[in-house]
Amino acid sequence: MIPNATLSAEEAPFYAPAVNEIALFENAYRNQLPVLLKGPTGCGKTRFVAHMAARLGRPLYTVACHDDLTAADLTGRYLLKGGETVWVDGPLTRAIREGAILYLDEVVEARKDVTVVLHPVTDDRRTLPIERTGELLTAPMEFMLVVSYNPGYQNVLKSLKPSTRQRFIAMEFGYPDPETEAAIVSAESGLPKDRCVPLVRVANALRDLKGQDLEEGASTRLIVYAATLIQSGLRPAEALEAALLQPLSDDPDIQSALARVAELALG
Amino acid sequence: MIPNATLSAEEAPFYAPAVNEIALFENAYRNQLPVLLKGPTGCGKTRFVAHMAARLGRPLYTVACHDDLTAADLTGRYLLKGGETVWVDGPLTRAIREGAILYLDEVVEARKDVTVVLHPVTDDRRTLPIERTGELLTAPMEFMLVVSYNPGYQNVLKSLKPSTRQRFIAMEFGYPDPETEAAIVSAESGLPKDRCVPLVRVANALRDLKGQDLEEGASTRLIVYAATLIQSGLRPAEALEAALLQPLSDDPDIQSALARVAELALG
Amino acid sequence: MIPNATLSAEEAPFYAPAVNEIALFENAYRNQLPVLLKGPTGCGKTRFVAHMAARLGRPLYTVACHDDLTAADLTGRYLLKGGETVWVDGPLTRAIREGAILYLDEVVEARKDVTVVLHPVTDDRRTLPIERTGELLTAPMEFMLVVSYNPGYQNVLKSLKPSTRQRFIAMEFGYPDPETEAAIVSAESGLPKDRCVPLVRVANALRDLKGQDLEEGASTRLIVYAATLIQSGLRPAEALEAALLQPLSDDPDIQSALARVAELALG
Amino acid sequence: MIPNATLSAEEAPFYAPAVNEIALFENAYRNQLPVLLKGPTGCGKTRFVAHMAARLGRPLYTVACHDDLTAADLTGRYLLKGGETVWVDGPLTRAIREGAILYLDEVVEARKDVTVVLHPVTDDRRTLPIERTGELLTAPMEFMLVVSYNPGYQNVLKSLKPSTRQRFIAMEFGYPDPETEAAIVSAESGLPKDRCVPLVRVANALRDLKGQDLEEGASTRLIVYAATLIQSGLRPAEALEAALLQPLSDDPDIQSALARVAELALG
Amino acid sequence: MIPNATLSAEEAPFYAPAVNEIALFENAYRNQLPVLLKGPTGCGKTRFVAHMAARLGRPLYTVACHDDLTAADLTGRYLLKGGETVWVDGPLTRAIREGAILYLDEVVEARKDVTVVLHPVTDDRRTLPIERTGELLTAPMEFMLVVSYNPGYQNVLKSLKPSTRQRFIAMEFGYPDPETEAAIVSAESGLPKDRCVPLVRVANALRDLKGQDLEEGASTRLIVYAATLIQSGLRPAEALEAALLQPLSDDPDIQSALARVAELALG
Amino acid sequence: MIPNATLSAEEAPFYAPAVNEIALFENAYRNQLPVLLKGPTGCGKTRFVAHMAARLGRPLYTVACHDDLTAADLTGRYLLKGGETVWVDGPLTRAIREGAILYLDEVVEARKDVTVVLHPVTDDRRTLPIERTGELLTAPMEFMLVVSYNPGYQNVLKSLKPSTRQRFIAMEFGYPDPETEAAIVSAESGLPKDRCVPLVRVANALRDLKGQDLEEGASTRLIVYAATLIQSGLRPAEALEAALLQPLSDDPDIQSALARVAELALG
Repeated sequence: MIPNATLSAEEAPFYAPAVNEIALFENAYRNQLPVLLKGPTGCGKTRFVAHMAARLGRPLYTVACHDDLTAADLTGRYLLKGGETVWVDGPLTRAIREGAILYLDEVVEARKDVTVVLHPVTDDRRTLPIERTGELLTAPMEFMLVVSYNPGYQNVLKSLKPSTRQRFIAMEFGYPDPETEAAIVSAESGLPKDRCVPLVRVANALRDLKGQDLEEGASTRLIVYAATLIQSGLRPAEALEAALLQPLSDDPDIQSALARVAELALG
Repeated sequence: MIPNATLSAEEAPFYAPAVNEIALFENAYRNQLPVLLKGPTGCGKTRFVAHMAARLGRPLYTVACHDDLTAADLTGRYLLKGGETVWVDGPLTRAIREGAILYLDEVVEARKDVTVVLHPVTDDRRTLPIERTGELLTAPMEFMLVVSYNPGYQNVLKSLKPSTRQRFIAMEFGYPDPETEAAIVSAESGLPKDRCVPLVRVANALRDLKGQDLEEGASTRLIVYAATLIQSGLRPAEALEAALLQPLSDDPDIQSALARVAELALG
Repeated sequence: MIPNATLSAEEAPFYAPAVNEIALFENAYRNQLPVLLKGPTGCGKTRFVAHMAARLGRPLYTVACHDDLTAADLTGRYLLKGGETVWVDGPLTRAIREGAILYLDEVVEARKDVTVVLHPVTDDRRTLPIERTGELLTAPMEFMLVVSYNPGYQNVLKSLKPSTRQRFIAMEFGYPDPETEAAIVSAESGLPKDRCVPLVRVANALRDLKGQDLEEGASTRLIVYAATLIQSGLRPAEALEAALLQPLSDDPDIQSALARVAELALG
Repeated sequence: MIPNATLSAEEAPFYAPAVNEIALFENAYRNQLPVLLKGPTGCGKTRFVAHMAARLGRPLYTVACHDDLTAADLTGRYLLKGGETVWVDGPLTRAIREGAILYLDEVVEARKDVTVVLHPVTDDRRTLPIERTGELLTAPMEFMLVVSYNPGYQNVLKSLKPSTRQRFIAMEFGYPDPETEAAIVSAESGLPKDRCVPLVRVANALRDLKGQDLEEGASTRLIVYAATLIQSGLRPAEALEAALLQPLSDDPDIQSALARVAELALG
Repeated sequence: MIPNATLSAEEAPFYAPAVNEIALFENAYRNQLPVLLKGPTGCGKTRFVAHMAARLGRPLYTVACHDDLTAADLTGRYLLKGGETVWVDGPLTRAIREGAILYLDEVVEARKDVTVVLHPVTDDRRTLPIERTGELLTAPMEFMLVVSYNPGYQNVLKSLKPSTRQRFIAMEFGYPDPETEAAIVSAESGLPKDRCVPLVRVANALRDLKGQDLEEGASTRLIVYAATLIQSGLRPAEALEAALLQPLSDDPDIQSALARVAELALG
Repeated sequence: MIPNATLSAEEAPFYAPAVNEIALFENAYRNQLPVLLKGPTGCGKTRFVAHMAARLGRPLYTVACHDDLTAADLTGRYLLKGGETVWVDGPLTRAIREGAILYLDEVVEARKDVTVVLHPVTDDRRTLPIERTGELLTAPMEFMLVVSYNPGYQNVLKSLKPSTRQRFIAMEFGYPDPETEAAIVSAESGLPKDRCVPLVRVANALRDLKGQDLEEGASTRLIVYAATLIQSGLRPAEALEAALLQPLSDDPDIQSALARVAELALG
């Protein structure tokens, strides 16, 4: 297990703060409080964590959660090496040993045995008992746990139990305001900002359809894709089709509605 | 497997008794009766057990139960070492050998094979047959089994069978009274007690919404989080938002209701 | 695998017979008929079997059945030892080899593959084919199979198939009559019998609520717990609360109903 | 894997033929046709197969089918021995190699992968391809496959697919006529036949309740149990209660109905 | 893995063609098109494939599909031999290496991972990537894939996805016409053809009940069984009962209906 | 793991572009954007990817997704070799190391743990953390991820989560126009183009029935099959029956409807 990255503050990925999230995160880090990030897909949660890890000078371990992730995938397991079983740390164990930040993306996708393993490190004990090796790790001050999920399509079967949720302070993320978003898209794609503005306008028009025709609004990432394709020589209509309309729906009726909405937004 | 801690009575974590729970627990310990703790999340059950273990001078083993916990996770299993299979005790076996307290947190989350393995150690036999090694352990006087769960969100599928429940004496836990809770919050966060009082008032106002808008009321832990953030320099409104409102719900309507309730409680 | 105990007749645990169960059990043993015990939790089935095993001078193997018990847990399995796979008998195999009594507690909890493995030893063949080793064991006269379950909360999904049930003679157990039960409670707890009588009266009043408010009535074990706590210095009201009311229900309404019933019964 | 028994014709267990089942079975054996036996629990199907195996001078392998039986349990598997994986035949493979009779009891309980493995040996190919070893066994003339099940409690989920069923000739078994059954009960229990006659009368009265109050009628085996208990000194009422009434139902209302029916039948 | 058989054209099992199936199959073989056979149980699909394999001079591998068949059962797996893991080809891999015909019987019973593994060998790539060994096999001209299923009792849960179905040319099989079927039955059983004619008449009368009282009509195989029993000395009524009526249903009402229909058909 | 093929641009399989898909794909490749292909079965998605891989001079790894595909099947696993566990790359890892194109066919069939493993390689990180080996691979410019699925029979249970979908630019495929399709069919089958035209007409008539009687329209592949059979000597009616009608439905009513539609289309 190696961290995703250990960057200095100068190397921190660009992040444009929306409100007080940087101060809040630093405050939580100083007080050793676990943090829960909520927000729609592609709005910048992952980048925010990468930014904060670099800013705080901590290594970052990221785990994308899913149904089949087991507690052992986090804590570690025995592997056979040369006829011997050798213990190999998982990312949680490694992050505790190194005083790193562990980021569990889409934590509600994980099974209960995974979330329960987080309990002793997220209360005043700050310990991780590893039953299979008999170790009891105590987390250093520098260890921090961050989890995220998207409340937008969280279903009844998959949610955090109150006994897990109430171990985190929480912050909510949304899409950046249009001005900021156009700047981000321009920076990422190389397309001049004034040509990014109408793309952001289209995305925001499509986001208004969420809950009616669309399961989820267009992410900043998709706008960056569209801008990249345009900057790379594709006609704007082709780029919008490939990067904003086709990825959002398979239904022909919805697609032509999206196309009409996009056309109106472009003016 | 190592105990969570073996503390002397002087090192016992702070615990403010509500009623007769300390006498009752000591009585059960002296008479070798297993104990069941019931109560909402974050109300101090885990800390109570840690306190009692230190007070009674017994090592403490804690297991957070979940769907995938197996009987072998409690009793032990064979591992391959140097080509040989070596038996490694689980926490139940270890606690019996050492005369420790075994604490099974959220026991209803465990599968039936886990609860059934507890039967012979919780009746007058006080024995643990380990089928895989052929051992029959007899628990010493000092061994004690404690289990807990939260009746608030116990569902139909997950409950203790009468044949398991009726092996325990039971005690019910609630939130501390406001005065005591403010003292606890102040002690944990370092925020002066008079500044903790309104936070406790907010939490109690939010707890009244349980069952209507909220699955579970705000835990003492969340109030401590809020106080910690304030003590660390955050504005009270930001701290309440991050530590009490955001962790309780994702629904925008419920969140603004919570905010209104909090405002009224602050006066 | 070792027996739970091999006691001489003098060491037999105390058992107060209700009707003809001792004669019936001895008769079944002499005729090599398997026995099925039916009755509510904590009414003394397990103790009866321990008593009879000592009385008949046979070792006793007890297995608490559950969903995850496999046929191999009963018959045995291969384990890796020093690079070789070594066969290790399960309790059924061991009991047959030694002419012991095998007691399967709550047999309906076991899966079908477990009950089916009992078929050849419970008909006139009295044999156990162990497919994995190629052995065909013939049970000696002294081997006896006893199973139990609680018809009170047996559900539709879990029941014995007629082809399994009709391999056993069956006896039904209930709670002891009040006089006997008070004597048992006094003997177990050390509390004078006249102080046990009202506790038994409370338990019987609570048992009448079974099927209405309670899933299962109060077991003799819980009365013993209450008497033990009183004998150990707790006030009777506290002991009743902890040992009889709290273990029976989590519902506040039902708990106050139980409290009222208990009060009336105490007079 | 060893056969249940290889008996000479003189050692054949006693079997009182009802109609043409012996001729039909011998005919099927001579023509290498697989046989399916249908009938209620405890009516003598297993004994009939044992009788025929002895009569035909073939070894007999019996497998009680269940949900967790795998195809490998029938065909064989690799086991680790001294660091090498060694192939160990299952009962189907062994029976084919030896020209034995393989009897699969309650075949509908088995999963589809088990029944499908029977297909190539039950059509004109009479071969068993063992994929894991690369062998293609051809069954000798003496190999015969017999399966049984109880149509009485066969459910919708568990039934033989037509493509499996239509590989067998089938015969239906019922309870013996009263005269024969009393003779069998007397022979098995040692109780004089005239004292067995009323027991058989009771059993037949109870069998008439099948489908109304009872899932399944009383088997011949249960009558033998009752007679054995009486012969062994128990009072007839006690014996009937333990061997015929208690095993058939747990419902108090049904039990008193059964008792009344039994009383009337005894006259 | 060894083929079921490698027969010369002279050794081909007898097969009476109904329409153009032989030409169609040969055409598909020459053009390397996979073939799907549809038809009721016991109508001769398996024999047809055996006939064609012999006629085309190709080895034949047959796999009876079921729920628990895995992709590895078709492609191969690693086995431990002498401390080394050795790769062992499955029937699909073997058939490709040898240019054989692979026949998957009742392919809809297999899981999706099994059918998906067939995709690359059934389009113009004609390749089999074996991920575990890193091999990419290219099928020779002589390799052919044949699958079959019975649309009669195919359910909603189990069907071929269009992306799998549309990889095969398909042919439908039915029962032979009465004249041909009587000839087949006579050839297989040794019973003179004129005595087989009424048996075929009975079978056809029973087949008309399919969908009303019967899940599936009587197969040719069952008629052969009946004829075999008669030829072997059993009375026709007994043979019909054992080979045609009992195998088709367990319901007493349906059985007497079947008996009446059979009687009428016999005239 | 070896690529399906590494072809030079001259060896690229024939592909007739419909609209701007080649430019769009090249643009995505240059900008390192993952691509999602949508369209019905057999319309040429797989061939398009093969064509583009050759055109771009990249090796191609194809994985047919299914329910039982695990994340380890993509990333790699430890295998036992000579007593040592040796890491073996999966196709995703291999493709990243070699700068190849990885094509996941029918990606919605895969489980969530498979799609989630794609997340870090499909955002700006372009990294693959392999938890079991502790490696963090960074994808070279030449690595490209392409996935496909058929929205036509995508069900509610199986769909891509927005957080996965919004990582791809998307393009929709349909059947070629009649002129082009006849040319393709002629090129593939060798049948003169004018004889392919009516076959394409039949296919298009059948495609119009999709959603009413048919789950999916006739693929180009099936038309090629029909043309191949005709070219190989079969009568057109027989070829249509075997290659276009029988593969599309098992329902006799639907089949005769299809036959009528085909007849009309042939004129």
